[in-house]
Amino acid sequence: MRLMSFEIDGKTSFGAVEGDAVIDLFPLLGQKYHSLREVLADDALGKAIQAGSEGKPDHALKDVTFLPVIPDPRKIVCVGLNYEDHRIETGRDPTGYPVLFPRYANCQVGHGQAMVKPRNSDQFDYEGELAVIIGKAGRHVGRDDALKHIAGYACYNDGSVRDWQAHTHQFMPGKNFTTTGAFGPWMVTSDEIPDPSRLTLTTRLNGEVMQHANTDQLIFNVPFLISYITSFMELEPGDVIVSGTPGGVGMKRTPPVFMKDGDTVEVEITNVGVLINPIVNEA
Amino acid sequence: MRLMSFEIDGKTSFGAVEGDAVIDLFPLLGQKYHSLREVLADDALGKAIQAGSEGKPDHALKDVTFLPVIPDPRKIVCVGLNYEDHRIETGRDPTGYPVLFPRYANCQVGHGQAMVKPRNSDQFDYEGELAVIIGKAGRHVGRDDALKHIAGYACYNDGSVRDWQAHTHQFMPGKNFTTTGAFGPWMVTSDEIPDPSRLTLTTRLNGEVMQHANTDQLIFNVPFLISYITSFMELEPGDVIVSGTPGGVGMKRTPPVFMKDGDTVEVEITNVGVLINPIVNEA
Repeated sequence: MRLMSFEIDGKTSFGAVEGDAVIDLFPLLGQKYHSLREVLADDALGKAIQAGSEGKPDHALKDVTFLPVIPDPRKIVCVGLNYEDHRIETGRDPTGYPVLFPRYANCQVGHGQAMVKPRNSDQFDYEGELAVIIGKAGRHVGRDDALKHIAGYACYNDGSVRDWQAHTHQFMPGKNFTTTGAFGPWMVTSDEIPDPSRLTLTTRLNGEVMQHANTDQLIFNVPFLISYITSFMELEPGDVIVSGTPGGVGMKRTPPVFMKDGDTVEVEITNVGVLINPIVNEA
Repeated sequence: MRLMSFEIDGKTSFGAVEGDAVIDLFPLLGQKYHSLREVLADDALGKAIQAGSEGKPDHALKDVTFLPVIPDPRKIVCVGLNYEDHRIETGRDPTGYPVLFPRYANCQVGHGQAMVKPRNSDQFDYEGELAVIIGKAGRHVGRDDALKHIAGYACYNDGSVRDWQAHTHQFMPGKNFTTTGAFGPWMVTSDEIPDPSRLTLTTRLNGEVMQHANTDQLIFNVPFLISYITSFMELEPGDVIVSGTPGGVGMKRTPPVFMKDGDTVEVEITNVGVLINPIVNEA
């Protein structure tokens, strides 16, 4: 099932996508949960899927504002250099462990919302990625158990401000500009995607294919990432792992390609969906 | 005023410290706010200080469990290599910008609670630091306006797992082990600390002084940090900036000193307080 977060008439809610419409799950779950994260935290994903399968559409998708799939995750853990062709294009040495850096929740936007090119940089780059949404808390999770902790999958565009990413050896600044992390359009629940290593990811800028890869090329695959991360901290329901981007980023092209006002960027993942965002300049 | 978060009889609350007791502010503020973060987010710090100055003590400090000053910050931004003697002891080059890395809220503990030495490392190190708590949201904040965005100050022990911090060039794993970030004992509101660059910080391990510095030695001072961070993202009420540790960390001593079961570590900052935590082994 496709689950999304949305806003209509100034109110935020979440629901199940059916065709070109959304079934509002807030009333169908007894007004108990105010976000998908709260559904997951109460182990109520099964109830949400049940309610979504029985409900009737409330709103046409064209009438709602898509929000980030999880608007309020407590943790967004991004993985760097996790496709070999991207590692090579960056000129970095192989790493023995996953390269992890943060995003914070308030830098995110949903499908269709603008990704904002900062006024203090001209190096705004795309990074198409598979996002993994945690459904069940875990610490010290083994690789064989890891997939059981996943609620679903979505597309992510880890919009990166390259000059700020390189201010020091730590990536945070370039990865946390306001409204640069696109997350959507929805989450496909894990019952429909038994194996996250069999998905094809494509990033297009103004219709032109810029990145194209299969998730079986991940250096550290999704079970490994969950096992590694939970060996130092607890993953909580609603936490998001953004699993890394393949080769083809704009910065490493000759000449470099950066996103600018008026561009449209898309991240498509088979069986998941297409995340589309316009680029606009910061006011 | 000293404001703290605490738990008693299984309930969490927050209050004002008076002598050896705490005034519970949850009822005095009309049961409207469930955490200090919510107080700050509603711009109600003034009301909290007023209520604290009029209230009567509810609990002896010895009867409550201290929680992290802000148990649920949306962002904890830590600063690395921000004292020259620490940068030199690490052997790293000077950086032109602050080195920023994350903590997540669920790795924190309060004053008196155990900092847990992980079972998968023997390199658990202390880092005494000044924590800055944001009171007012801001983006693109100038240095001259930065102090107006601060609600208060606290002690932080940025407990670091050195081998995991060095797994890759990104620091996150070694800085986010469960129950390794101590934050307390309380926040001293900024009206009592007009200048955060005139504080003395001391870290003691089992009574022995390991770090001793003045905050005027910060390479990037508190106004600069707020200005830099808000040049890429919005700081929100309750967000925490952990401003960096001075020289004297355990890892760089000869021979290295790491924390172990049974140790007691203290971080003292003049005019703020003393944060004390026992070290225990992970079960």
